[in-house]
Amino acid sequence: MNHFFGRTGARFICCFNSFHFSLTLNTRKFSHFSGNIESGSWRSMEGLVRCSANCAPLTPISFLERAAKAYRDRTSVVYGSLKYTWGETHERCLRLASALTQLGISPGDVVAVLAPNVPAMHELHFAVPMSGAVLCTLNIRYDSSMLSTLLKHSEAKIIFVDYQLLEIAQGALQLFAKTDTKPPLLVLISEADGQCPIDNITSNTYEYESLLRNGQNGFQVRRPVSEWDPISLNYTSGTTSRPKGVVYSHRGAYLNSLATVLLHGIGSMRVYLWTVPMFHCNGWCLIWGLAAQGGTNICLRKVTPRSIFDSIVLQNVTHMGGAPTVLNMVVNSPDSDKKPLPHKVEVMTGGSPPPPQILSKMEELGFSVSHLYGLTETYGPGTSCLWKPEWDSLPLAERSKLKARQGVQHLGLEDVDIRDPVTMESVPADGKTMGEIMFRGNTVMSGYLKDLKATEEAFRGGWFRSGDLAVKHSDNYIEVKDRLKDIVISGGENISTVEVETVLFSHPAILEAAVVARPDDHWGQTPCAFVKLKEGYDHVSAQEIIKFCRDNLPHYMAPRTVIFEDLPKTATGKVQKFILRERAKAMGGLS
Amino acid sequence: MNHFFGRTGARFICCFNSFHFSLTLNTRKFSHFSGNIESGSWRSMEGLVRCSANCAPLTPISFLERAAKAYRDRTSVVYGSLKYTWGETHERCLRLASALTQLGISPGDVVAVLAPNVPAMHELHFAVPMSGAVLCTLNIRYDSSMLSTLLKHSEAKIIFVDYQLLEIAQGALQLFAKTDTKPPLLVLISEADGQCPIDNITSNTYEYESLLRNGQNGFQVRRPVSEWDPISLNYTSGTTSRPKGVVYSHRGAYLNSLATVLLHGIGSMRVYLWTVPMFHCNGWCLIWGLAAQGGTNICLRKVTPRSIFDSIVLQNVTHMGGAPTVLNMVVNSPDSDKKPLPHKVEVMTGGSPPPPQILSKMEELGFSVSHLYGLTETYGPGTSCLWKPEWDSLPLAERSKLKARQGVQHLGLEDVDIRDPVTMESVPADGKTMGEIMFRGNTVMSGYLKDLKATEEAFRGGWFRSGDLAVKHSDNYIEVKDRLKDIVISGGENISTVEVETVLFSHPAILEAAVVARPDDHWGQTPCAFVKLKEGYDHVSAQEIIKFCRDNLPHYMAPRTVIFEDLPKTATGKVQKFILRERAKAMGGLS
Repeated sequence: MNHFFGRTGARFICCFNSFHFSLTLNTRKFSHFSGNIESGSWRSMEGLVRCSANCAPLTPISFLERAAKAYRDRTSVVYGSLKYTWGETHERCLRLASALTQLGISPGDVVAVLAPNVPAMHELHFAVPMSGAVLCTLNIRYDSSMLSTLLKHSEAKIIFVDYQLLEIAQGALQLFAKTDTKPPLLVLISEADGQCPIDNITSNTYEYESLLRNGQNGFQVRRPVSEWDPISLNYTSGTTSRPKGVVYSHRGAYLNSLATVLLHGIGSMRVYLWTVPMFHCNGWCLIWGLAAQGGTNICLRKVTPRSIFDSIVLQNVTHMGGAPTVLNMVVNSPDSDKKPLPHKVEVMTGGSPPPPQILSKMEELGFSVSHLYGLTETYGPGTSCLWKPEWDSLPLAERSKLKARQGVQHLGLEDVDIRDPVTMESVPADGKTMGEIMFRGNTVMSGYLKDLKATEEAFRGGWFRSGDLAVKHSDNYIEVKDRLKDIVISGGENISTVEVETVLFSHPAILEAAVVARPDDHWGQTPCAFVKLKEGYDHVSAQEIIKFCRDNLPHYMAPRTVIFEDLPKTATGKVQKFILRERAKAMGGLS
Repeated sequence: MNHFFGRTGARFICCFNSFHFSLTLNTRKFSHFSGNIESGSWRSMEGLVRCSANCAPLTPISFLERAAKAYRDRTSVVYGSLKYTWGETHERCLRLASALTQLGISPGDVVAVLAPNVPAMHELHFAVPMSGAVLCTLNIRYDSSMLSTLLKHSEAKIIFVDYQLLEIAQGALQLFAKTDTKPPLLVLISEADGQCPIDNITSNTYEYESLLRNGQNGFQVRRPVSEWDPISLNYTSGTTSRPKGVVYSHRGAYLNSLATVLLHGIGSMRVYLWTVPMFHCNGWCLIWGLAAQGGTNICLRKVTPRSIFDSIVLQNVTHMGGAPTVLNMVVNSPDSDKKPLPHKVEVMTGGSPPPPQILSKMEELGFSVSHLYGLTETYGPGTSCLWKPEWDSLPLAERSKLKARQGVQHLGLEDVDIRDPVTMESVPADGKTMGEIMFRGNTVMSGYLKDLKATEEAFRGGWFRSGDLAVKHSDNYIEVKDRLKDIVISGGENISTVEVETVLFSHPAILEAAVVARPDDHWGQTPCAFVKLKEGYDHVSAQEIIKFCRDNLPHYMAPRTVIFEDLPKTATGKVQKFILRERAKAMGGLS
């Protein structure tokens, strides 16, 4: 237990407009959860004050404002032939924030976006918080039904939609018609050169550039009143069919941005290639982090090996991210797409450990790969396999084995530990004893939106429980061994098996169903369904079931394999998924 | 003005032990200073909580704890033949913190230290805050009288003293005998190898290593209950004879550490050579910053050109700091002391702009010099002359001119601006209009200890007023032109002319006196006294006056030049120091 002490005669005096912490504690508020509530411990030092001179809420908005001064004429964004400077990006974000308020956005409102890594997506990460609102980034692989569910759950007032995703968004908005809920306003993101088909949009739909032009450059930013105010909302599929909206705070986003910049060694004015979707944990907080360092964002609508190599050579890319799927794509691309790298390119990979073959091929091509681990709930990266110089001289197999470990916590976190989920005891650092990975620190989410029960469950015992099983090695590096949850990760996307099973169960011919991951050379994993048909339905084919799932789920969530057989069960009737996983694994990778 | 909004039905729930912010605001506390007090703006998002899983006070203690895990076996400190790892440093600091509590140290107590850059000085920067106390670092050039004054002012309970400074410290403690105040306990820092004369210490004096050995390794760290709790106290001479104790908070120290690491591009596991005194702004917060990055601290008892070159070659130094005096010493050292650098060494300089000759010679030797600016009140570095790649190709003269500018704010600050000190209007970015440099942000001090009036004066208008005059260039870079205060900077030390004048005035022969800076090739500046003698005292020599000052002031504060003449005055009788400065300047540099 920490040692606490009383406070006597403190002389902290406050003199500013947006002060948000009280010096006294209202204990009535803290009836929830166990633990002692201690009063503030302000040192009784006289002469000190807190005011606007020495106290400001932490927010990534400050990064952009500083970049507009310190890096004013440097390139902020490159997208094809389009280029902005940090001065221009700042001005555009001010206008956009102003336009949002003109549309009636109030502080705390949710503004959603459905777009690939285009400049508008970048700008919305600043402009929405600058309007006081919360940015909800949506996975561009969602179908209309999922989209509609999440828009309702988030109560988004506006949705920005890339023109290529307009149909899906309109489908989602049409689903509002059946309910009493008012659909969000739609703002269309045209292609930056203005070339896009906007024939089929209705008259009350706005267009991004026109909207922005109407905003005021002199807009007074609505800074967070407290740094704990929400800045963004990221949906994770989780393992149940309920959507889980992970809420980030301005404080957490600020701290994770700096931690990730330091983790990745992104110096001042470096060039970052966006292969990681910006809708994933706000681009691992690097959209904000690059503003902190005055870096250049290379945006790509579509990530292909050719576009990656071209960007590196033409734009002088120094850093990039990418799920193992992206690395796989890079190393297996035809030689005609590859280009010799002008310098070493730093690559952060996460989602699953980089396989030895891919690692060695990436290194041969001139990339330096580092391995991160984290969850949406930890703002993206939470640990990294911090590379020790003495490992450089080891043979590839050993290096790969070491690099496959999830490593140690980054600076934003107070602690990452492997603990027994029941006793909460830390497991020994023996590389063998498994426990659950638990996180503690300022870069852990504020909670799941409108799901206090899930939040409390996730924070039970005062730690964030990741649901991942791992061991702790003698050098304190952690290594993930399995998942408590049965999530399937396909092409970097989490697929909840429960959601897929729910659809399977809705098929008239299916009696029992269980979905597990099947290894896949391209996607990492794909969903594999084990199905027991009802009597009299033996004619139903795997193809038919896959089609049924594709009609009722986002394409990527549908099983790629369906196996008909009796499901192995425990005595109490629970399906033994670990047996099914073994069977799926035994089938080998799908080509 | 920011836009505020009410809070309705917020569902933030707290579940942890050391929670320190209240969600409600007690407006009675905020009667001081003008400005609206707004209530917290917690978004009425349901499902969110704040607990130990997602909220921890920011403190540099976390850097050490993480370093002990992530960088456990890497070298933390090198001092001659002595080496520690981060694991060892962590354990030693735990023991030392424990020992402090055994000596009766309570949270909020002040613990002072008088030592050069030895390992104990490094460890105290962590151990004292880990015991809950506030570290007061004292300038090793102080004399017993000044020391005694500051020990009384800070109410230090313990003073750690390097064996070479024992006599001065004992002199200071003897001055307590004349008063009712209890002197602090003395802990002697022996030379690390145990070789030091401790004959003349009394029986109730402790010795550093013995004390540390008695501490508990399993000590439970007394973390700050609030991140706004003070972590350190740094005395600045200021311009008046009153000592000003600048108080830093855990939050500010955490944020400035990261900002300075990013500013200086200190990557993971780099090697930092300590030429900057650790007692200056806690080593510009880099003692903590290097723990954040698992760097190695090369400690030197005495900074000489030979020790600098030897360390670079032997210890693989990548980064160092240094006032222009240190750079001057490096470039003017005999060739026998110099060694070819194995790689480029990054040097942060501050205090005054690096002169062109020194800059070019440093570059020739293989150093890369960057220029910082800040004050004790801004935790050390606050701005930097962020180098633009396109400047590389400019001729030396132009590069020096550009590098002499103080530049742009670092990440820890919200804003640095040049404003009219009366109207508070921002000056135009024309490179001509002068105004006062003002700072705003989390890395501005909490205030001056026991001097609320001075704190309020410094923060008047909601900005920290630096007292320095500057212009703003068209690219937003600031450039210091003069000082509002008449401080003399000699060898990186601020000398208050008022303090020197007070001593001069105490001499029986002196009628009038004014001290200004005289340029000096070695020290940058030295104090130059203009004196008018009383009638009948014409026999008093300059030598005699200098001796008198040396007897009554720390050596470095005594004037090096004394000029006898009538003082130029304004109509209202105020001495026109700018005229004296011109005269002192005209004398040229003292060799």
